Amino acid sequence: VAAQFMNADQATSGSMAVAVDLGGTQIRAALVDSAGRISSRASAATLAAAGPESVIGQIAQLVAEISLDVDRDSIVGAGVSSPGPLDTAAGIALSIPTLTGFIDYPLRAKLSEQLQLPVTLENDGIAAAIGEWKFGAGQGFSNVVYVTVSTGIGGGIICDNRVLRGRRGMAGHVGHMSFIQDGELCACGNRGCLEAYASGTAFTKRAAKVAAGNRKTILGSQDGAMDAARVFQAARDGDALARSLVEQEADYLGKGFASLLHLYSPDILIMGGGLSNQYDALHVGIVHAVKAHAMPAFRDIPIVRSALGANSGLIGAASLAIGNV
Amino acid sequence: VAAQFMNADQATSGSMAVAVDLGGTQIRAALVDSAGRISSRASAATLAAAGPESVIGQIAQLVAEISLDVDRDSIVGAGVSSPGPLDTAAGIALSIPTLTGFIDYPLRAKLSEQLQLPVTLENDGIAAAIGEWKFGAGQGFSNVVYVTVSTGIGGGIICDNRVLRGRRGMAGHVGHMSFIQDGELCACGNRGCLEAYASGTAFTKRAAKVAAGNRKTILGSQDGAMDAARVFQAARDGDALARSLVEQEADYLGKGFASLLHLYSPDILIMGGGLSNQYDALHVGIVHAVKAHAMPAFRDIPIVRSALGANSGLIGAASLAIGNV
Repeated sequence: VAAQFMNADQATSGSMAVAVDLGGTQIRAALVDSAGRISSRASAATLAAAGPESVIGQIAQLVAEISLDVDRDSIVGAGVSSPGPLDTAAGIALSIPTLTGFIDYPLRAKLSEQLQLPVTLENDGIAAAIGEWKFGAGQGFSNVVYVTVSTGIGGGIICDNRVLRGRRGMAGHVGHMSFIQDGELCACGNRGCLEAYASGTAFTKRAAKVAAGNRKTILGSQDGAMDAARVFQAARDGDALARSLVEQEADYLGKGFASLLHLYSPDILIMGGGLSNQYDALHVGIVHAVKAHAMPAFRDIPIVRSALGANSGLIGAASLAIGNV
Repeated sequence: VAAQFMNADQATSGSMAVAVDLGGTQIRAALVDSAGRISSRASAATLAAAGPESVIGQIAQLVAEISLDVDRDSIVGAGVSSPGPLDTAAGIALSIPTLTGFIDYPLRAKLSEQLQLPVTLENDGIAAAIGEWKFGAGQGFSNVVYVTVSTGIGGGIICDNRVLRGRRGMAGHVGHMSFIQDGELCACGNRGCLEAYASGTAFTKRAAKVAAGNRKTILGSQDGAMDAARVFQAARDGDALARSLVEQEADYLGKGFASLLHLYSPDILIMGGGLSNQYDALHVGIVHAVKAHAMPAFRDIPIVRSALGANSGLIGAASLAIGNV
């Protein structure tokens, strides 16, 4: 059915893009049309330690897979979402902590050569923001703040109907706003960033730490591993410690979001990333903290969950390649 | 000489604007040409408690004074810089803490009626940012963060060659970024904002507090009053306590600025406001903190003092009125 639908759309809209979501653990590729609809997809575990050439090879293979049954002429280009920091103005990966060897690497040129397509390169947070703005929870708004809360915290900003890029396309590093003075060490090397307190990683680390010294919780620590879903499930099951962990997380996020409202004045703030799968459990606490910490003129700005989930970045990257941003 | 210069310019450029800088303690008005040059000026102490009609009357009188010798036809409009929060899209003062009665007040319409001129209304932080971008330290850059450090902390952002406005024109409230969790009470009602730690007010409050309990400082506390200039002078005179106060202030500012670099990715960050008069004493400490707290790709962004000083807002407001923004 999806394929039929796609064909019908191709007949009317014509243009399509290859979208690639390059991540530290997984590479995903898809065909996306100008209405933001995904048809064929493929994915692979990233050969993160193997160096840029191997990763480029993986991307080329995935793109070949999804393009098999498609007229090459209908593909206008490739949109690639990548972790940063990237200099998207120059098309260069400055350094990608999760991918070995991507240091001052001409990612756009290499991909373009390999894929034989024009390539648009975008920071993953900004690509996802564009996806949500054009086809997700941000549709119809002029000002959107998108925050992805996952292993780290990233984001992308639409302001006055334009994507905020700034010097080297690096605007919107919202996870590295100073949050607690001289606080926890962050992956960026600094201390006390929002990411170091409110990311999924920080959340599970906190959970493991408090569970280890507490016999009253059902969270346990026998196997050493702790994942976010287990904490949320325990909270739903009435576990007091898990509940307080979820409340604490919502409070951190809400405080961080309040600052972002003051800084960017969006019409809406959209939360995506892995932790947004638990948005139902976080929403009340987030909104409570926003109302407590935002100035009156900013308190009524809606905070919502992403509508496109894991596909925001793919769809945003494709929009850039198709040129409707 | 200034007047001759002005006439020469009028002959070539033609258009001029009335600029008004409405503040809680002072109202300043000036004629500004399209090259950002100020000619005649006037000012008055704001009748802050007398209500909007009195203040509008004061503005009208000041504008009449500066326009006396000028052909009315050469004045294209009035640009007004005002403390916020304003809804500049609607032309409304939502609430101005320092001016009695400016609550949901249609400031733009009232001024336009009174002055018989088209009026452009802008938040003071954004107006000053525009002034610096067009004619000051930000000239030639596409991405500028301007931060005014004075009684409070405000700001304005230029990103991708456009003024960042956001919902209701309220983007760039950089002073109300959460800075220290549950910290000092801020004028906005929240706790722990950057403004509550790094504003001129916070600086002098801190100075008064530590001086009161310390006999080794030349700062003294005999008269109860403490002003920033006295602390900076004492630091220059070698007073250890004053020096540590200045270092602390620079550190707070630098940490806040590092966050702003991550959030907006400017080509340059410009510090204005009263405390920027002491920029020479703060610069080293600010840059040190920025380098310690910004991610590598953001560390080399220059931090400078405003070039237009107290006139940034007037010149920016005029630029808006003339329409060259």
